[in-house]
Amino acid sequence: QRMKSKYSCYNHHLLSIYLSIYLACDREPMKNLYAEDGSPVYPRQGPYFSDGQRRVDYVLTYQIQKPNSIRRQSSRFGDNNFIRRLWRSLNIRSRRAEAQPKEDPEIAAQDQRTDYHEDDKRFRREEFEENILETGLELEMDERTNIPGIGFMKVHAPWNVLCREAEFMKLKMPTKKVLHPNLVEKIRLFIHKVTAPLHPKVDPNRPQTVKFLSHPFSREKQHLKFDVVNVSPLTFGISSYRKYFGEKVGLYFAWLGVYTQMLIPAAIVGVIVFLYGCATVDDNIPSMEICDPRHNITMCPLCDRACSYWKLVTACGTARASHLFDNPATVFFSIFMALWAVLFMEHWKRRQMRLNYIWDLTGFGEEEEREESEKAKVKLTCTDRLPAYLTTVVTMVFMILVTFAIVFGVILYRISIKAALHMSTYSDQSNIRATVKGTAAVINLVVIIILDEVYAAIARWLTALEVPKTDKSFEDRLIFKTFILKFANAFTPIVYLAFFRGRLVGRPGNYLYVVGSYRMEECAHAGCLMELCIQLCITMLGKQLIQNNLFEIGIPKLKKLLRRRKSDLDSKQEEELNRSLYRHEKDHILGPFVGLSPEYMEMIIQFGMVTLFVASFPLAPLFALLNNIIEIRLDAKKFVMELRRPIAAKAKDIGIWYNLLRGLSKVAVIVNAFVISFTSDFIPRLVYQYMFSVDGTMHGFVDHTLSYFNVSDFQPGTDPLQPMHLGYRVDICRYKDYREPPWASTPYELSKEFWVVLAARLAFVVVFQNVVMLMSDFVDWLIPDIPKDISLQIHKEKILMVELFMKEEQGKRLAARENHNQDNCNSPSSANQSPPRPRSRPVSHANCC
Amino acid sequence: QRMKSKYSCYNHHLLSIYLSIYLACDREPMKNLYAEDGSPVYPRQGPYFSDGQRRVDYVLTYQIQKPNSIRRQSSRFGDNNFIRRLWRSLNIRSRRAEAQPKEDPEIAAQDQRTDYHEDDKRFRREEFEENILETGLELEMDERTNIPGIGFMKVHAPWNVLCREAEFMKLKMPTKKVLHPNLVEKIRLFIHKVTAPLHPKVDPNRPQTVKFLSHPFSREKQHLKFDVVNVSPLTFGISSYRKYFGEKVGLYFAWLGVYTQMLIPAAIVGVIVFLYGCATVDDNIPSMEICDPRHNITMCPLCDRACSYWKLVTACGTARASHLFDNPATVFFSIFMALWAVLFMEHWKRRQMRLNYIWDLTGFGEEEEREESEKAKVKLTCTDRLPAYLTTVVTMVFMILVTFAIVFGVILYRISIKAALHMSTYSDQSNIRATVKGTAAVINLVVIIILDEVYAAIARWLTALEVPKTDKSFEDRLIFKTFILKFANAFTPIVYLAFFRGRLVGRPGNYLYVVGSYRMEECAHAGCLMELCIQLCITMLGKQLIQNNLFEIGIPKLKKLLRRRKSDLDSKQEEELNRSLYRHEKDHILGPFVGLSPEYMEMIIQFGMVTLFVASFPLAPLFALLNNIIEIRLDAKKFVMELRRPIAAKAKDIGIWYNLLRGLSKVAVIVNAFVISFTSDFIPRLVYQYMFSVDGTMHGFVDHTLSYFNVSDFQPGTDPLQPMHLGYRVDICRYKDYREPPWASTPYELSKEFWVVLAARLAFVVVFQNVVMLMSDFVDWLIPDIPKDISLQIHKEKILMVELFMKEEQGKRLAARENHNQDNCNSPSSANQSPPRPRSRPVSHANCC
Repeated sequence: QRMKSKYSCYNHHLLSIYLSIYLACDREPMKNLYAEDGSPVYPRQGPYFSDGQRRVDYVLTYQIQKPNSIRRQSSRFGDNNFIRRLWRSLNIRSRRAEAQPKEDPEIAAQDQRTDYHEDDKRFRREEFEENILETGLELEMDERTNIPGIGFMKVHAPWNVLCREAEFMKLKMPTKKVLHPNLVEKIRLFIHKVTAPLHPKVDPNRPQTVKFLSHPFSREKQHLKFDVVNVSPLTFGISSYRKYFGEKVGLYFAWLGVYTQMLIPAAIVGVIVFLYGCATVDDNIPSMEICDPRHNITMCPLCDRACSYWKLVTACGTARASHLFDNPATVFFSIFMALWAVLFMEHWKRRQMRLNYIWDLTGFGEEEEREESEKAKVKLTCTDRLPAYLTTVVTMVFMILVTFAIVFGVILYRISIKAALHMSTYSDQSNIRATVKGTAAVINLVVIIILDEVYAAIARWLTALEVPKTDKSFEDRLIFKTFILKFANAFTPIVYLAFFRGRLVGRPGNYLYVVGSYRMEECAHAGCLMELCIQLCITMLGKQLIQNNLFEIGIPKLKKLLRRRKSDLDSKQEEELNRSLYRHEKDHILGPFVGLSPEYMEMIIQFGMVTLFVASFPLAPLFALLNNIIEIRLDAKKFVMELRRPIAAKAKDIGIWYNLLRGLSKVAVIVNAFVISFTSDFIPRLVYQYMFSVDGTMHGFVDHTLSYFNVSDFQPGTDPLQPMHLGYRVDICRYKDYREPPWASTPYELSKEFWVVLAARLAFVVVFQNVVMLMSDFVDWLIPDIPKDISLQIHKEKILMVELFMKEEQGKRLAARENHNQDNCNSPSSANQSPPRPRSRPVSHANCC
Repeated sequence: QRMKSKYSCYNHHLLSIYLSIYLACDREPMKNLYAEDGSPVYPRQGPYFSDGQRRVDYVLTYQIQKPNSIRRQSSRFGDNNFIRRLWRSLNIRSRRAEAQPKEDPEIAAQDQRTDYHEDDKRFRREEFEENILETGLELEMDERTNIPGIGFMKVHAPWNVLCREAEFMKLKMPTKKVLHPNLVEKIRLFIHKVTAPLHPKVDPNRPQTVKFLSHPFSREKQHLKFDVVNVSPLTFGISSYRKYFGEKVGLYFAWLGVYTQMLIPAAIVGVIVFLYGCATVDDNIPSMEICDPRHNITMCPLCDRACSYWKLVTACGTARASHLFDNPATVFFSIFMALWAVLFMEHWKRRQMRLNYIWDLTGFGEEEEREESEKAKVKLTCTDRLPAYLTTVVTMVFMILVTFAIVFGVILYRISIKAALHMSTYSDQSNIRATVKGTAAVINLVVIIILDEVYAAIARWLTALEVPKTDKSFEDRLIFKTFILKFANAFTPIVYLAFFRGRLVGRPGNYLYVVGSYRMEECAHAGCLMELCIQLCITMLGKQLIQNNLFEIGIPKLKKLLRRRKSDLDSKQEEELNRSLYRHEKDHILGPFVGLSPEYMEMIIQFGMVTLFVASFPLAPLFALLNNIIEIRLDAKKFVMELRRPIAAKAKDIGIWYNLLRGLSKVAVIVNAFVISFTSDFIPRLVYQYMFSVDGTMHGFVDHTLSYFNVSDFQPGTDPLQPMHLGYRVDICRYKDYREPPWASTPYELSKEFWVVLAARLAFVVVFQNVVMLMSDFVDWLIPDIPKDISLQIHKEKILMVELFMKEEQGKRLAARENHNQDNCNSPSSANQSPPRPRSRPVSHANCC
């Protein structure tokens, strides 16, 4: 027990060191802490110890009393309802926040189970404090705060502790030596400046124009003049994000920036593809043929009994609309987006490398395995873990099945409502369809949003069950589970629409029925692409609008409003109370930082929407771009204003998210191949044109895709109630499928055309997948992971370092020879004080002996 | 110019340092250098300077005179033909060897063009020597050697230079602290011991049972007691390879070991699959039907005019043989081998990580970019480079076309010879076939072997044209080009057999003719798989036998034999001469080390054979295994005995070869999918069984695959000369294809069955490719790249290091306090000499002041 608390102290301490070296600036802008003449002023709220000298580097909070003894204590504040409510909410919040950094869920669980005595708690806290002091940190306790029941433990890390830890961590620090930017760097900066409006906000003084030569910090190498206080004022460029929040958050914003930037070309090409569709809609022979009333094609009824025969010309509108999303440009766009995804990954890798260099992270190895040895002592065997793993697998499968069931339920809803509407009245068909489609899509959306929250909770619970060994392992497993569940949730309805809808219908006279007597739903005549498109549009817009704007902004605003209305204080009083609070008390009221996972997850799902079904919805990148431009600003505001400042964490890359992105861009190739070949009419059209067309044009394509059905072959009880609906007797109706006509030797069997088209579709999948994969790999191979200028710079730095040390070395040697000559002279300082002067013999010291 | 030579000196010097720190043992076993009582003896051949104290760490050679003035000089040796011949050959060799380390092909080219004056050469050499001396190395010139015209420059690196360079390189050195192996490590060692016979030879004293704690070498941390002379006696385990040759060669042997080890399960499963084929050959219904004489099927003639109709029953033998390689087990084996390839890559990654840890390479970054800044000064723009790149692309394409042309030539040879043989006599058909097949395969093989050598030269020439910036870039480009050319060379005939042969034939009455009147060749009845199999067998066995054994062993042996027969000296005299030579003179006679590329290339091509077409030849892994067991020993012998000791190079991984392996294993999935679905009869059989068979069995399959042809539809002049060959009049003959019968509405068109089978084949490709890729990615994700025990060990080491430094820190602090207390006491030694004793206050020094 003792070891554990000692250990955890050590860990905190490390974090704090890191925090204070890099983030030696607080929410209060630095300039406020200095008077006009440059001398420091110590405001009451200043982040300093009571001596006004030692800076507060880290604040820990603890409860002073048990919750049930507060009321007595808080009487000090009189009948101040607001404060009491505030305190209560804080109490809950802080408990949650306290549970957060404890990486071992076992212990957390134990904590909840056992109610420790007050004494035991105090004993443990005192032990903890002792351990902190032992490492050289300095403490100041503050129990008489404005927030009753909460004690603050302020931690100050003295200079020598900071130095020691920096040395342990081999923290690379910039030295006073400046590397001047070369031409490439200058051009890059220019581009950066031009595209500045896309990044959240660029530092006005552009701190990256000069790069300081870096070296792992060492007290023995102080002559390199480490520039430890080179902290630029707080503005909101990526590098300031990093200075304020640490590299991990900095990388998130950098990634979001790169992603948003990369969305611009995708959105532009998407819009062009869409416009191409709009422009060519009147030249499209198949839709012209459908809309031509001279082609008097009678179609088979769309539902049993209630529906009657209908004329193909009524599907004219849908056919024309379908062309917007189902034209040859879409195929080009799919290939483009597959390569775009690869380029994005490459671009990000390079940007990450560049940031690693600028942030002096090259050569930094992740330290997250640190906790392992501690946990290994309560090592769990495979047998211990098996039940947890089994639970995980079973629960995950169950939850995915639930998703499927819900999607199926929505389908049933659609089918049954449609059938019911058809039965009861004979109003305008298109109206019915629109209503059903709209409500179904909204239901889907609501279900997705609700399940998203449920799944997040389930994933957390399951991961806690598994008792992962390290913090990083916990996070990775949680992310992986959440990703699978959320992904299944978001994409199941879309996948159904793209690949299954209208395919499991059967044929006239032999329809497929589900749950008794409901016929599976068909697509509108011109393919399911249109409906897929609508669904994607609703999901993307709806999810982003509701989840981002409503949840992230609306609800907190609403809460604030409600609180203010209920509160007895008017705004002035509240402001005054607010002013009376210390800095750390104010921060305590803010919400805890829950990590970057939700932000990343949202973006990854969006990335999936943009890449996976881009073939069916070329406007997806545009929508994503618009969302992200807002998102990037909202996130920044939220992190700075509404959440407690997170513990700065160092990170070299975006971790598991990169793998998920890679996985998605791989899957995207296959999904797009299938969408183009199976969902769109691209392949059947090609096959018709080059194999079956008499004159090599598309004329006659519509007729070719429709099979014949003899109405006398309807199953008893399924023929239309009103066969004369169209005004004439129908003997043969048409339906969309490749089947033998009733007069063939094998009527209604799949025809040769079906197999030809199927073979063509599959051949397209094989060719598309392999060509795009080959091109992706080629692009991947062509673009070096490390930008040319960075690798040159790194190399230059290395050379400079070697030269520096070589000089130092020679200087030492010469000095040593000098010393040797002056043999008995025992001045210990001469060797160290003489500056290294290579090749020029140092002047002998007159002050020796 | 001055800078360049200085630079190159620095480079050599670094290499030499590395050599001497790590490889402080020579070909002479260490014990020979010490007398029985342990005092060193200095034999005449010892690798020491003439003072007998300073060790020779590196030897450079140079020419003393121009080649045309040797004869006069060599008169010292009298009319010693052998020596003169020897010298001449050495001269050529050494020149070649000298050109080798010069990384800049431009300069090498310049060297050849201009004939420098003797003085200029000497001046340059002296400048070079000066630069060497400036870096602190010590030199000894030896011009009066037994080999006339060659001067030896012996280099000794003193201890302080070694230390300095080790510090610069942040070379991780083992310290005296021992990490005891844990249980996992012990188990691993046990497994290693059991599988020992597979590795070239294992160190008898197993130096890996204990691991020394490592730390970047630093003179300031001497108290860690770096164990710099921990060199184990020279035996031939992997770790000794590494100690003797450097990490790069060590990694090659480790890789070869892992590959050979992994081939064992593949070979076993392959043999089982083959045996399964043998066992089920009599249960195979299609071959039974072919062999059944009651099925009186008349086949169409195999060539125009000369051939006549034939009975299917004569193809019985081929059909039965085909079953050995074309059965459901093959499909399983393909999937197995795809996963095997992934497992192999994973296993290698882990092994590499383990070696990195054992060899203290964790945290070592490659230093190959070192030369870049130098070359960047003669920076070539894109326009300068364009012609070279264009030449490369054009030449590569041209060479690949040459390969295609040669393969096509062999096909034409086969067709024409076969036609000619048919024309002239009517001897036994099978005899003719065997002759043609055999000669064609041998021609292919010979062409492959010859072109391999030509292509290697072309690739080198092309890479030199491109003037790559760094040594590593040169090597990578060369390897990549060589790989493409050799790969195309080795696999074009196989790809033709697998995917094109028998597919571009046309049909009876409408055959495809090439070069005038030659009909494209068909496969034997039961598919081309059998012929593919034979070709693979010949290529693998032939290539390995001829290239490895004949080229690598036979030719050197033969040369030696010839030389000895021609030489005037008998073996005794020669031996005596040999004994009179110094160690470095003897080594000078050996061949230069040309790099590992040829060895790797050979293995990669073999890996390609094993994985790419494994579906058609399950015995490939067995053949590869047998070859490698020999190869690994031959390579070891060659490196130690017949080549000069290479400059030790540090390497963390096998570099570009890993990427090539990965690429191959990816391509293998697709190729296998195509072999199974298009080359084998697996899919047609499945389709027949589940779609067309009347009773759900394979009965009738043969009949189903044969189309009908009306002999009256033969093109004029192509019908057989002897239509009554079989003894009866033939009206309808059969041929293997899915086409409509003559009596259909569209005679000889591709039938519905064709499209069904094609769709099934393509569906199989899509499913196989994606399932196997998914499984591969899953396996890749499942197996961590860093072995558990290694990551634990690394972590443990880190903790130990931190504890060590923490103690040191505390000790220093206490000592400093002590000093402070004894205020005026100015003894500089007390702070440094007192050993760090944490927590126990050091005793105050009595001898102070």
